[in-house]
Amino acid sequence: MRDVAIIGVGQTKVGEHWDISLRHLALEAIQAAMVGAGVTRTDALYVGNMLSGELAGQEHLGALVADFAGLRGVEAFKVEAACGSGAAALRMGYVAVAGGLADIVVVVGVEKMTDTLGPDTTAALAMAADGDYEAAQGVSFVAVNALLMRRYMHEYGYSHQDFAPFAVNAHRNGANNPHAMFRFPVTAERFARARMICDPINLLDSSPICDGAAAVVLAPADAARALSAAPIRIAASAVGTDTLAVHDRRDPLVLDGAILSTRRAYEQAGIGPQDINLFELHDAFGIMAALSLEAAGFADKGRGLRLAMEGEIRIEGRVPVTTMGGLKARGHPVGATGIYQVVEVAQQLRGLAGANQVPNARLGMAQNIGGSGATVVTHILERME
Amino acid sequence: MRDVAIIGVGQTKVGEHWDISLRHLALEAIQAAMVGAGVTRTDALYVGNMLSGELAGQEHLGALVADFAGLRGVEAFKVEAACGSGAAALRMGYVAVAGGLADIVVVVGVEKMTDTLGPDTTAALAMAADGDYEAAQGVSFVAVNALLMRRYMHEYGYSHQDFAPFAVNAHRNGANNPHAMFRFPVTAERFARARMICDPINLLDSSPICDGAAAVVLAPADAARALSAAPIRIAASAVGTDTLAVHDRRDPLVLDGAILSTRRAYEQAGIGPQDINLFELHDAFGIMAALSLEAAGFADKGRGLRLAMEGEIRIEGRVPVTTMGGLKARGHPVGATGIYQVVEVAQQLRGLAGANQVPNARLGMAQNIGGSGATVVTHILERME
Repeated sequence: MRDVAIIGVGQTKVGEHWDISLRHLALEAIQAAMVGAGVTRTDALYVGNMLSGELAGQEHLGALVADFAGLRGVEAFKVEAACGSGAAALRMGYVAVAGGLADIVVVVGVEKMTDTLGPDTTAALAMAADGDYEAAQGVSFVAVNALLMRRYMHEYGYSHQDFAPFAVNAHRNGANNPHAMFRFPVTAERFARARMICDPINLLDSSPICDGAAAVVLAPADAARALSAAPIRIAASAVGTDTLAVHDRRDPLVLDGAILSTRRAYEQAGIGPQDINLFELHDAFGIMAALSLEAAGFADKGRGLRLAMEGEIRIEGRVPVTTMGGLKARGHPVGATGIYQVVEVAQQLRGLAGANQVPNARLGMAQNIGGSGATVVTHILERME
Repeated sequence: MRDVAIIGVGQTKVGEHWDISLRHLALEAIQAAMVGAGVTRTDALYVGNMLSGELAGQEHLGALVADFAGLRGVEAFKVEAACGSGAAALRMGYVAVAGGLADIVVVVGVEKMTDTLGPDTTAALAMAADGDYEAAQGVSFVAVNALLMRRYMHEYGYSHQDFAPFAVNAHRNGANNPHAMFRFPVTAERFARARMICDPINLLDSSPICDGAAAVVLAPADAARALSAAPIRIAASAVGTDTLAVHDRRDPLVLDGAILSTRRAYEQAGIGPQDINLFELHDAFGIMAALSLEAAGFADKGRGLRLAMEGEIRIEGRVPVTTMGGLKARGHPVGATGIYQVVEVAQQLRGLAGANQVPNARLGMAQNIGGSGATVVTHILERME
């Protein structure tokens, strides 16, 4: 096994791109990443995507995107793990390069959720949950999270308003990110007044439906220095899974998949949570952010939200999260999100995060979650000195 | 890089399983493969599937199937490459074991195409083709193949009836396969009288819509002997891609993706087509079988069909194909097909193919195709002496 590095990154602006098709979005991100890496070829292309079949009437994105990006002939597949698809595709690319089966791999996450054919996007997203035991009962994906949030408030005595800091922090950071969908700050007062979506989840506690693509180019770390001025080492790539249906878990408020995934990542990198300088977590909803902080060892059970309330999740805090806006403000084009997270961690480690720069960032963690914690893919990135 | 072996195989009967859900189908195949391999754990589970979202309203099969198969917590993803999804998942498993990132990997291909929610299955299958340039014009997937078949007949002067040997051979072999959907022989006369589906493709030239699952367990070859009485070495695992849209290719009657994929596989195994004892090709339609024989080097351009007409594709011929019934008679549960092919090659190499045994089979090739040749995944298997 050999070390793997990211030698190029690319991303489109996240938004409602009614005038840009899925393949064009993917192309834009891939081109930016390959130009950044200074490569014109690749041994493989892995595409992270969840809903192209349901929403765009298009499966088979591997070969489609490869051809459209000028890579015709290359090994190419789509990898799917619901909203964790992006990082799942990255994991596959990591495995191929680490194991020596490929030298250069391009990984792109792409999702087009607006201007769709096919069913209602909310119905499509429910396919991340257990179809027979959750979705068939009429429970949408936001409803699963609303139930978890209500339970969290009940168990630990939090109010709805206590969740505001996640949105406030994400929007503050997103305002400075040119690729973010929402580039404006929100106040706790605005959070309090936001329209209810699925009680207790309101509009400002919910990540948006949107389009976007992000890409990275991978290479062996020992070759990366010659290829890139600022390569980023992948210090860990790890996966944990859990039941899709929340009712099958030992405790609905414990993300066992995230505990497994993070523990495996820490072991691989030889570090612990205290060494992490920033954490791009999966804030599809505030409740997921709180549970993720706990599963990753940054807070005890029931105390993840407190970390946010105490301001420790801000760029100047102990565990900066969603430093470029997160799923909430940068946006959550589901199959692309995992790659956006990694691109943003790389930006931070390269010192290119502008007004949102975490000082002296050396180790960053990105955690992409499929479903309500059923697939959890964790990557730890490290600046190469 | 280390050698990889198959140490266990499993398969369900292919058919219309209205009483068995997708997760149960996958479980049955996985259990059989794991019991066969004598293992109770795995480092990863990769699921090949194309249409669970569209037809069953369920994405996120990796974690779902892992949990249902008693493997909760393990790394698990779905891999998709249209009808090539099964072998694409196997390719990912091969990469993980060959590169030393996993010791035991379970790969399952599963598809449930009958008793569905969602759209018409024919509309869903069209998602393997180019949505913007083919499907949007109303061209179904069988129509793309009908156009290719008509062109092949026109260019090389074949009649419709010349395609009969593919169906006759597949059904003769399927009759002896307890896992096949169609266990009866058909004659060339019956082929001539079969109902037209999409001129010139008739019912007996078309693989069926059906349900099924097949699985394999992978391990490093040097450990395989201790784990299995009859391990099968994966001598090559290779992928080639091409445009989804047939009109974008240099010649619609040349499968460049298959040429690339097969050439890479031969190079990896250090052999040529003359060394292959049987070839499980992707006979979704007779025309695909003819073009595959040509792309894989068994016949010159325009002569693949002649190989069938001369009887050389039969078990006693020079290039036995579809030895357990192929897509035509065993059935074509799309995302599972690539694993069925590999399971059947393993059966042949182990001498367990019964009445359909290819004498002295030592090297077998399985080739799984997504779309009309856009993704081509080739595996060459070898009996370990």
